[in-house]
Amino acid sequence: MPEPERVGLPTYQDVQEAAAFIAGQVVRTPAIRCPVLDSIAGAELWLKAENLQHIGAFKARGALTAVGRLSKDERARGVLTYSSGNHAQAVALAAKIHGARCQVTMPVDTPAIKIEAVRALGAEVTFAGTTSADRKQAALAIRDRTGSIIIPPFDDRNIIAGQGTATLELFQDVATQTGGASLDALVVPVGGGGLIAGACLVAAEHNCPVYAVEPVGCDAMSQSLAQGKRALVVPGPTIADGLKPVQVGELNFAIARQHVQAAFQVTDVELGRALVSLLVYAKILVEPSGAAALALALRSGGADLRAGETLPGAPKRVGVILSGGNLGAETLRQLLDGYPPLPRPDAPPTHKQAGVDEIETVE
Amino acid sequence: MPEPERVGLPTYQDVQEAAAFIAGQVVRTPAIRCPVLDSIAGAELWLKAENLQHIGAFKARGALTAVGRLSKDERARGVLTYSSGNHAQAVALAAKIHGARCQVTMPVDTPAIKIEAVRALGAEVTFAGTTSADRKQAALAIRDRTGSIIIPPFDDRNIIAGQGTATLELFQDVATQTGGASLDALVVPVGGGGLIAGACLVAAEHNCPVYAVEPVGCDAMSQSLAQGKRALVVPGPTIADGLKPVQVGELNFAIARQHVQAAFQVTDVELGRALVSLLVYAKILVEPSGAAALALALRSGGADLRAGETLPGAPKRVGVILSGGNLGAETLRQLLDGYPPLPRPDAPPTHKQAGVDEIETVE
Repeated sequence: MPEPERVGLPTYQDVQEAAAFIAGQVVRTPAIRCPVLDSIAGAELWLKAENLQHIGAFKARGALTAVGRLSKDERARGVLTYSSGNHAQAVALAAKIHGARCQVTMPVDTPAIKIEAVRALGAEVTFAGTTSADRKQAALAIRDRTGSIIIPPFDDRNIIAGQGTATLELFQDVATQTGGASLDALVVPVGGGGLIAGACLVAAEHNCPVYAVEPVGCDAMSQSLAQGKRALVVPGPTIADGLKPVQVGELNFAIARQHVQAAFQVTDVELGRALVSLLVYAKILVEPSGAAALALALRSGGADLRAGETLPGAPKRVGVILSGGNLGAETLRQLLDGYPPLPRPDAPPTHKQAGVDEIETVE
Repeated sequence: MPEPERVGLPTYQDVQEAAAFIAGQVVRTPAIRCPVLDSIAGAELWLKAENLQHIGAFKARGALTAVGRLSKDERARGVLTYSSGNHAQAVALAAKIHGARCQVTMPVDTPAIKIEAVRALGAEVTFAGTTSADRKQAALAIRDRTGSIIIPPFDDRNIIAGQGTATLELFQDVATQTGGASLDALVVPVGGGGLIAGACLVAAEHNCPVYAVEPVGCDAMSQSLAQGKRALVVPGPTIADGLKPVQVGELNFAIARQHVQAAFQVTDVELGRALVSLLVYAKILVEPSGAAALALALRSGGADLRAGETLPGAPKRVGVILSGGNLGAETLRQLLDGYPPLPRPDAPPTHKQAGVDEIETVE
């Protein structure tokens, strides 16, 4: 089946307009710098901390753009989405802010913590099967019955423009803090592709190459770029449960194929060690999906990035999107059990210390 | 022994001048808002995230102020400090930035992670005993021999003014983000008292009451305020290893006794649960000492704050200083083992879920 015409793709201007539209409703998340991670990577890493966004993920940006632009009549009909993850919380938040009723269809095996988070925002939850097809079908049935407006998770002009605002802020902050410099590379995690599509629209304006990162075995974007058309995949197991689409979005792929330089896959070990390293060195928590871009930047303890083997040309100033931070305490404990932080390369060896736990300290 | 005259105490103007002096050298850390923590506390908590400061703690502010103000001749003599914790890293960083040699005396049982961090910043480490008295004495001996300039950890005019800049930024950010409002209360952890002394100078300008928080059994400030003079204590065991002074600083106490409304003690359970709750709800990591102010705000799951039992008048807009975030992965794992997050009060009960771990997800 041929790919659709590329008419109606969102543009850089759409991202700028979305940014103005949702200003004040979203957190202007910091671009965090961490000297220890820089020393591991051998590059300046500019970490866009979307884990500090409302509902703990960039998804708030797209949902606030899409729901906010509904007409008064549309809002009165209520909004509806299908998601087991951060998009559900994002739509629930946007609906709450804009005074619309919100329904979400979720898999029957959704962890309680995610159901709680959506219900706390006032949304109604309906359970349907265990696959994305099941819950999408259930949502369509509800729409047909109630007339509610569906807010799709990624393949949507407003969603893409909204997600792009994270990258817009990142380039602005890099310019401000460096006296006008730009990024040499931008690394973005890919699930359905909404985040990277928005990122591409912005990075292209700055002539900055964009690199996609997916978990090993969940390479829908990689396969699509290789085949020149959207591939259907059966996602394998990964700790990055937000990056398991069966197919990337149509609009997203149309944008990504124009701008994405290359796509990479990261292992669970790379994801886990990046997550733990970020936590102990930069003091912020991401979910495994949120660590994907960083995992690539820190591959082989940074050696591959420094040598130009991870990214062409060994870029010196690298934007890294940390997409979200929603995970429970028990899951985090397991990750800390399984994955040690990467060693810091900048410290000389220390002499062996006595095994004393409690030490007396003055501040 | 009578308290010394209050001549020469630092002022609000000193904090303003320090802020201008170190602008661009310190991270303007965000004032993080977290709706789940707000709903637990029943108040707006404005979380000043000094765990995201250089070297992972507010200490960078004071050290950059103190070292930066040394004369060229003084810098040429090198700087010296005694600390097992964040102050050592802060002085090492400041010395590196200002091109001064740096020496640190540390206890022989200092964890390797802290030694590594100081050495990575180029400082030389000398080991001396296990108590604060041991390492201070060793530092004095080095000074007498080498003429190095001692940068004390808290009882110093420049250090106090520098630490005060964190609170200065917090009030500025609250005003900006609320359209001119102020805080009803400010809660600050206390070790030697440098942070709270600087905080008092700023909060007094805003007529905002300041509350001190110490670990149970490490109540040097509480006892000093009660006795009207600096008490000597034998710090008991606590997981907050940055808050174990034997005595608060002289200048710090002179300022605190004028401005601090009350002092509170928090237990290890309160510290641990606040730390874990902050991690899973706000996605940022603090060390146990850094969780002390939040632990008070969340006491009894927030019930005490809402009822006016924690702080007089049940303040609605509460500043909470998160002072630092330096802890290792293994320590964090133990904290997650020992302390569950506080439950979120805003979610209706969920139905029981099947115990399925891996779920298929589209974003």
